[in-house]
Amino acid sequence: MDALTAVTSRQIITLTTDFGLRDAYVGVMKGVILGIAPDVSLVDITHEIAPQGILEAAFHIRSAVRYFPPGTIHLAVIDPGVGSDRRAIAIQADACTFVGPDNGIFGQALAELGLLKEPAGSLIHAHAVHLTETRHHLQPTSDTFHGRDIFAPIAAHLANGVPLHSLGVAIQHIEVGTIAGSTEVAGRIHGHVVHIDRFGNAISNIPYKSLPPSPILARVGAHAVPGLARSYREMRVAALIGSAGYLEIAVRDGSAAHELGLKVGDDIRVSRGESPE
Amino acid sequence: MDALTAVTSRQIITLTTDFGLRDAYVGVMKGVILGIAPDVSLVDITHEIAPQGILEAAFHIRSAVRYFPPGTIHLAVIDPGVGSDRRAIAIQADACTFVGPDNGIFGQALAELGLLKEPAGSLIHAHAVHLTETRHHLQPTSDTFHGRDIFAPIAAHLANGVPLHSLGVAIQHIEVGTIAGSTEVAGRIHGHVVHIDRFGNAISNIPYKSLPPSPILARVGAHAVPGLARSYREMRVAALIGSAGYLEIAVRDGSAAHELGLKVGDDIRVSRGESPE
Amino acid sequence: MDALTAVTSRQIITLTTDFGLRDAYVGVMKGVILGIAPDVSLVDITHEIAPQGILEAAFHIRSAVRYFPPGTIHLAVIDPGVGSDRRAIAIQADACTFVGPDNGIFGQALAELGLLKEPAGSLIHAHAVHLTETRHHLQPTSDTFHGRDIFAPIAAHLANGVPLHSLGVAIQHIEVGTIAGSTEVAGRIHGHVVHIDRFGNAISNIPYKSLPPSPILARVGAHAVPGLARSYREMRVAALIGSAGYLEIAVRDGSAAHELGLKVGDDIRVSRGESPE
Repeated sequence: MDALTAVTSRQIITLTTDFGLRDAYVGVMKGVILGIAPDVSLVDITHEIAPQGILEAAFHIRSAVRYFPPGTIHLAVIDPGVGSDRRAIAIQADACTFVGPDNGIFGQALAELGLLKEPAGSLIHAHAVHLTETRHHLQPTSDTFHGRDIFAPIAAHLANGVPLHSLGVAIQHIEVGTIAGSTEVAGRIHGHVVHIDRFGNAISNIPYKSLPPSPILARVGAHAVPGLARSYREMRVAALIGSAGYLEIAVRDGSAAHELGLKVGDDIRVSRGESPE
Repeated sequence: MDALTAVTSRQIITLTTDFGLRDAYVGVMKGVILGIAPDVSLVDITHEIAPQGILEAAFHIRSAVRYFPPGTIHLAVIDPGVGSDRRAIAIQADACTFVGPDNGIFGQALAELGLLKEPAGSLIHAHAVHLTETRHHLQPTSDTFHGRDIFAPIAAHLANGVPLHSLGVAIQHIEVGTIAGSTEVAGRIHGHVVHIDRFGNAISNIPYKSLPPSPILARVGAHAVPGLARSYREMRVAALIGSAGYLEIAVRDGSAAHELGLKVGDDIRVSRGESPE
Repeated sequence: MDALTAVTSRQIITLTTDFGLRDAYVGVMKGVILGIAPDVSLVDITHEIAPQGILEAAFHIRSAVRYFPPGTIHLAVIDPGVGSDRRAIAIQADACTFVGPDNGIFGQALAELGLLKEPAGSLIHAHAVHLTETRHHLQPTSDTFHGRDIFAPIAAHLANGVPLHSLGVAIQHIEVGTIAGSTEVAGRIHGHVVHIDRFGNAISNIPYKSLPPSPILARVGAHAVPGLARSYREMRVAALIGSAGYLEIAVRDGSAAHELGLKVGDDIRVSRGESPE
């Protein structure tokens, strides 16, 4: 009975890195984790973050967090500052736990979960530590691969139930990074493209709730894109609410990024209306 | 003892999508599955299907099904029709269960397993449902990502033992799509290239059993390729039976696709003979 | 209690191949493994080895072995000789077990673990068998995909506790392949670049222990690179000890391979000194 309970409450550790899949780095981190916590489930979010792409990683982690069960540990290693004085941290809340460098990578997810008092970077309903207790790290600890030597073992120890406070010094503020957020000016919503996905859909930082009632027009570059479509089938070129709850520009059976020339950072302005002014 | 049994009968869910590995979509589906069925084993077939490449996905699923243990659940999401009136379905047989859109993606695998009465699309020794019972779907259910909101939770519930009939309305016919099949005309087998693999091997839709006895000649473009070789080492350019049981054109330590200019869709004609006519 | 023990001692099987992730080959191998040993943890080292890149695979396996717990089974299939008379082997030691073709793929890892008496290829503190007992292979056994038909089932049977000696004929020598090793001539260490990682770091075959005390100069092409830096942050262009314990040339927030024009095989000469002679 106890064993079954242990099985059915298997802990999940997700991994998000910029290591790619050609090198052995991700496999090595998994070896370290399973050596400490043999029964966790490991789930890759993505390892194809552009080298040192903190903002891109923050976007993907934010998209994912709401779809994992309570207790999931999200391990993220996009770490251009490895070996500098940037802090290694862990953040624990009811919903989930984050482990990684303190460089803003978790800011968007914390905001999505309502765990952040912006922009100060102070946490609400969450505890954080600076991972200073080196006895929980791999020995010797390199200055070039904290993913393997610090973050992987810490995530595994947390999965094993080691309490957060024993891992280091409590901290109240963390680096928040860029929180994707749109603004409203004179009835128009201003945002921008934060991600182009594999299908060429251009995903914005404009949340569903901030939009005026349909019909709307989304202006991006020289284009005025009508919306809201309900699905990718409804119109050939459309603005719709993407699966993560944000405005998205899509082209049916094609790539909006390619056809409309969209790229990350492009401005999007949304207003009510059925056709270009 | 019960717990051990539970462990050793771990259910497998395979995943085949066109989502790629740069975005978080696959990881999110796994989070949904593990939230419902924490102890399943997740196995990726491939996520590198070209966007909306139903035929390519059907080929890979067919290649894989015979190598998974009974009870395996194959989840596939190549879904250009998401949000339209294409049906979401699940198909259950002794050998395995399929979950995904009703767009032909499972036709080749069903034929391989002898579960299909072609071309009508009626099932033999298998039960299917249209997934209409929305209480088993994620709420709210998007119109853009049924992989996450419908197919992932349904696969997880099936892994947990939820009976098929409780998931929706029984259906008798499904979309079959293109079943790769060769034809024989005047002693010659006609088929075509259905896949180029990573090594440049050109895999056809001509099954082992339909071939005349060796020696044979496989004509493709201007080339007459001798066979059957037993392995990739035997001849430099050879026709052989690939690992999935179909005729394949290969070049030793090289790429047949590159050297012979082969691509998906190219005609292949096979006859007995030792040298070009 | 027994069940819990079973769970916490879950066996790991790692996979290293040149199959890529577009085809279903890796997924099929996992299906075969889980059909025999349902409770193993499967960890991908990499599947992006260049086709038939034995040396590259040997490097990655060597980098990984020390980070997996005792008992881990490393399955590797870079197998240009499949279907020829190259032997299929398994090697078992206290630290881990290797399963794959006898083509040198495990030589570097065995050397790293002190299990090899170079260059004769005789094993120390390790047992090896030629996998001749076909009753443990998939039937029928193809001549084109031993990864699926021989190596995957053998790894799974070993995970289940099937004893090594029952799998085939004991052998004393294996193919060692190229063991990366540097040499010292007149106070200078000579080595070469063995891998360029995703970040453009150029990793050498010069182990930490063979280096003179810092400061050093690493000459590569027309460049004299100072070292040892402790981390990627310390100098813009630096020689440092990479995470696997070997000299590495790195450029901060950039690619050493690109900026310095480095590639696999380039000579590196290291001497004491603070500036170019």
